[in-house]
Amino acid sequence: MLSKLFPKNYDFYTLFETSAGLIVNAAEAFQQLLSKGEDDGRSALATKIRELESRADHNTHQTMTLLHKTFITPIDRQDIHDLIKRLDDILDFMDAAASRIILYEITQVTPELHSFARINYESSLLVHEVVSALKDLRNPSEILRLCIEINRLENESDQLLQKAMARLFKEESNPLAIIKLKEIYELMETVSDRCEDVANVIENIVLEYS
Amino acid sequence: MLSKLFPKNYDFYTLFETSAGLIVNAAEAFQQLLSKGEDDGRSALATKIRELESRADHNTHQTMTLLHKTFITPIDRQDIHDLIKRLDDILDFMDAAASRIILYEITQVTPELHSFARINYESSLLVHEVVSALKDLRNPSEILRLCIEINRLENESDQLLQKAMARLFKEESNPLAIIKLKEIYELMETVSDRCEDVANVIENIVLEYS
Amino acid sequence: MLSKLFPKNYDFYTLFETSAGLIVNAAEAFQQLLSKGEDDGRSALATKIRELESRADHNTHQTMTLLHKTFITPIDRQDIHDLIKRLDDILDFMDAAASRIILYEITQVTPELHSFARINYESSLLVHEVVSALKDLRNPSEILRLCIEINRLENESDQLLQKAMARLFKEESNPLAIIKLKEIYELMETVSDRCEDVANVIENIVLEYS
Repeated sequence: MLSKLFPKNYDFYTLFETSAGLIVNAAEAFQQLLSKGEDDGRSALATKIRELESRADHNTHQTMTLLHKTFITPIDRQDIHDLIKRLDDILDFMDAAASRIILYEITQVTPELHSFARINYESSLLVHEVVSALKDLRNPSEILRLCIEINRLENESDQLLQKAMARLFKEESNPLAIIKLKEIYELMETVSDRCEDVANVIENIVLEYS
Repeated sequence: MLSKLFPKNYDFYTLFETSAGLIVNAAEAFQQLLSKGEDDGRSALATKIRELESRADHNTHQTMTLLHKTFITPIDRQDIHDLIKRLDDILDFMDAAASRIILYEITQVTPELHSFARINYESSLLVHEVVSALKDLRNPSEILRLCIEINRLENESDQLLQKAMARLFKEESNPLAIIKLKEIYELMETVSDRCEDVANVIENIVLEYS
Repeated sequence: MLSKLFPKNYDFYTLFETSAGLIVNAAEAFQQLLSKGEDDGRSALATKIRELESRADHNTHQTMTLLHKTFITPIDRQDIHDLIKRLDDILDFMDAAASRIILYEITQVTPELHSFARINYESSLLVHEVVSALKDLRNPSEILRLCIEINRLENESDQLLQKAMARLFKEESNPLAIIKLKEIYELMETVSDRCEDVANVIENIVLEYS
């Protein structure tokens, strides 16, 4: 009961950081997956990403349970809910893209796939950094600078998608190959959209508390 | 004027349940539609789903009107707004999927279409149940259990989409048939995403009031 | 310091109107783009839309900066944040559609493209009108009427997408042409979805303040 009145508030921050750390791990595994040949551990890396996604699900569930047991939260209840759900979304789309590379038997790893994986890895590092920075809201300008960096990468990802699709239509004539790569490109671009959603939630938190 | 100060609060719950009931009806009609041949009442069932969607639109509009006339709401104004809009979204995607089956003249009802329709029907029952449970927030654990069930079905739907697409690319060679079915599969999967959005809004309400 | 305590509140409204004005300009440029031949200034108009989108980004950034410097805001902080971001989204999708028309070298301007551009132009005028009306919340019924009009156009856009796709599948046999136009149609339909999101945020503001 006392622990309910005097919650260990840092727990929420630890849970956020856990999800953010899983995102970084998945982004790393994604880059490794792209560098492997089809019979050289690609499936194992997709499975690893799926496991990281399950652990994030579990972490989201734990956060919600803690939220229901806690009277006084360090930041607004809805912000905690939104933040952990948006972090979860990032991993969902990484997993969706990775599993489609396996399912669609994509053998031709285009330069654009590598570029998306690089942008998503950089975004994941920024997400991890900004989530860690949340613990101390006394320096909002640094937090907002990180959010702007995440938005910048989302713009870059958007431009990349346009160029990737233009080249695909020019150089690939097989419609099925186009449909498959288009879907994977779009899923990888959505990863950076979801990182931007996290930045938006964090901007909101900073607006309220700093 | 007095009725404005002492609103019949249960009205909002009745309006939520009306929308949830329309969703269940539409999910039932969708399953029937898939079991019919092209000249055997399919269009009539798509029209029925369209009518249910219109009634939900009307119900959303009534909820917003009531919201504007009510001083004291039983739950947060924004939550009422979000919940009725998210319920509306579910029917929009059911209608979009049904109308495309007719418009694209899909004659080949794949097993995956049946599976999506079954998942969406189960989700609609859970949405109806959890919306009805909102009236009494004294039992939050039951409400949260239903939300977790809805999330579980969304995961199932997600996995189904992946398997459906993998099989489609393997067994169908006509790109137009692939594009059409891919769009319908994705719309049907989005139905369970929107059910999850409803669960998210309800989790938020429970967080605030229980 | 005094200016921080006594903010020029109208600034936020000016910033909203600036973004809404840029949206109207972009919707106009889009209609002009469709009426031009490929070597007749189409690229210049797509570039113009890109520039309008950049100016909206800059305006969003300025709004966020002002929000962080302002103690007392005329409307809820989160609503200001949401509204400027949703306005920004509209221009993002207009830009995405315009740039794909150029990138995919769409020479065949279908009647449906013109219809989407017309709906988006009408929606942009309504968005501008409703954003301007926000300054005076004493007349909520007029604001809500405009929101309903925006929703009506979104429904129209949705119906247009269905008819456009049905005709495309019937009359076009080249899968690549279908994939390209389908993507552009969907992006143009998403513009009206994002206008509806703006209407939703504004409905929320009216609910809280009127």
